[in-house]
Amino acid sequence: MLAFDVGGTDIKSALFDATGAAVGLRRTPTPVGGDDPVGALIDRLAELAEELREQHPEIVPEAIGLVVPGIVDADSGIAVFSSNLGWRDAPIRDLTAARFGLPVAFDHDVRSASWAERVLGGARDYADAVVLIIGTGIAGALLVGGQPYTAGGYAGEIGHSPIGEWPCPCGARGCLEARASAGAISRRYAEETGTVVDGAREVIALASAGDETAARIWNEALDALAMSIAQLTAVMAPQAVVIGGGLSRAGGALFDELRTRLADRLSFHRIPVLVPAELSGNAGILGSALRAREAAHA
Amino acid sequence: MLAFDVGGTDIKSALFDATGAAVGLRRTPTPVGGDDPVGALIDRLAELAEELREQHPEIVPEAIGLVVPGIVDADSGIAVFSSNLGWRDAPIRDLTAARFGLPVAFDHDVRSASWAERVLGGARDYADAVVLIIGTGIAGALLVGGQPYTAGGYAGEIGHSPIGEWPCPCGARGCLEARASAGAISRRYAEETGTVVDGAREVIALASAGDETAARIWNEALDALAMSIAQLTAVMAPQAVVIGGGLSRAGGALFDELRTRLADRLSFHRIPVLVPAELSGNAGILGSALRAREAAHA
Repeated sequence: MLAFDVGGTDIKSALFDATGAAVGLRRTPTPVGGDDPVGALIDRLAELAEELREQHPEIVPEAIGLVVPGIVDADSGIAVFSSNLGWRDAPIRDLTAARFGLPVAFDHDVRSASWAERVLGGARDYADAVVLIIGTGIAGALLVGGQPYTAGGYAGEIGHSPIGEWPCPCGARGCLEARASAGAISRRYAEETGTVVDGAREVIALASAGDETAARIWNEALDALAMSIAQLTAVMAPQAVVIGGGLSRAGGALFDELRTRLADRLSFHRIPVLVPAELSGNAGILGSALRAREAAHA
Repeated sequence: MLAFDVGGTDIKSALFDATGAAVGLRRTPTPVGGDDPVGALIDRLAELAEELREQHPEIVPEAIGLVVPGIVDADSGIAVFSSNLGWRDAPIRDLTAARFGLPVAFDHDVRSASWAERVLGGARDYADAVVLIIGTGIAGALLVGGQPYTAGGYAGEIGHSPIGEWPCPCGARGCLEARASAGAISRRYAEETGTVVDGAREVIALASAGDETAARIWNEALDALAMSIAQLTAVMAPQAVVIGGGLSRAGGALFDELRTRLADRLSFHRIPVLVPAELSGNAGILGSALRAREAAHA
């Protein structure tokens, strides 16, 4: 299989051999700007494919896995909207299939990651689960009865579920992401203190060391996450919430605190287990390769 | 079919003929108290069935539909918990089947109502929908891909999803129900003014007539509902939210206000249509009869 995970800043590309192992995995910049972002992207994917196949002629892909961010309607193969990548209602699956002459499994990046976590990672024991990726932003994906639940591409926008009144660049207010993403934590600390930090984990370390501003910002982020997970629990009652992304590497500082606060916010509800994602930064391309294999054998 | 909708204060019972029409529908008090609430309930159901069959000997039920409130695990036939009815982990389906010698379709009352709305009512055009019943409390049920999503009986507790910090009798805090149910609206007005009102609709009428306390309480209820529906929208993106129960009879005063506030709380999200439930107070027993017919023909 040939698989691509297209992000706002870079593209991961790899071949996957018959055992499912990635071969030639690399990151290259995503082409940005220009009048035809989708055309430029597909040109770049074709170049990357060419290079991979020259380097690894022994692997002949039968299908392509392609995952992208934003609002994605996987059923119709359309990238509905991405503010970072500048497209709207782009029929990326069919354009890619036409360029490569191969079937294309097309999906949303985080839903693809959640699928990899479901098949191979932290969600493998849970048919009803929420996968939450907390990094620059916060993205989510829902597994219902063991399958992704997409709602035409709109489900899982937990990062933009409102829980307060603060502003969010998306145009709504009170969004979880604007308070609890790793990006928001470090940005808020820099804004309040004038000190630029090396990511949210430095804020967490400062909080542990007694910095009151850092402690307040981290505390507010934890409360916001607990609030959102509590709401999810009341409404959807997932068996597990699988947390990945940069912030999940905070380990016990995140997971133990969230467990305590979640229990505090709920009563008779069935409280989900909180577990770390296991596939880390490569879950998206791995899910993409899994889907490509399904497409090749469909 | 023979169908029962058991509530905290009364039991609805009816036979359903071959056309699906209810025959002999009546309400009688739910037996409460005693050492064996489940045994007393099943005795009462047997008496009601006896009376119905004497009055309508032409209808010979092939199966029984039975719906109850609380936490219900329909798959295992167990009423997990009901604070009003005083049971915990009661195998009500199998006890009822043994007493009557008939197959029993057993479900949660509001999920049963949502199923009737899905088959015959306000949700019939929407495979992905949330049914919200706003009365004394607030109960919800989820439809995913046209089927109820239950999560072992724990899904849909929208009334006890936290959105603030006020106390809730359930033991958690900030629950939607404690601010936005019809019961909460009239109770809050009585507490603040010392004037007992005839339900939430009187508070809404007072708000329209310029009563500032009524206006604030109604405004806070609308904000709370919009907040919860906005969160639902971000996470699950239902196509529709079907609203029933006493408060839904407020009509435009509820629906128009919610539409405006929901649009104000969201940005790129897919905003669901808000539609009234169509089957009103009988949706629960109707869904129960639908399920009984499925059980008879399974």
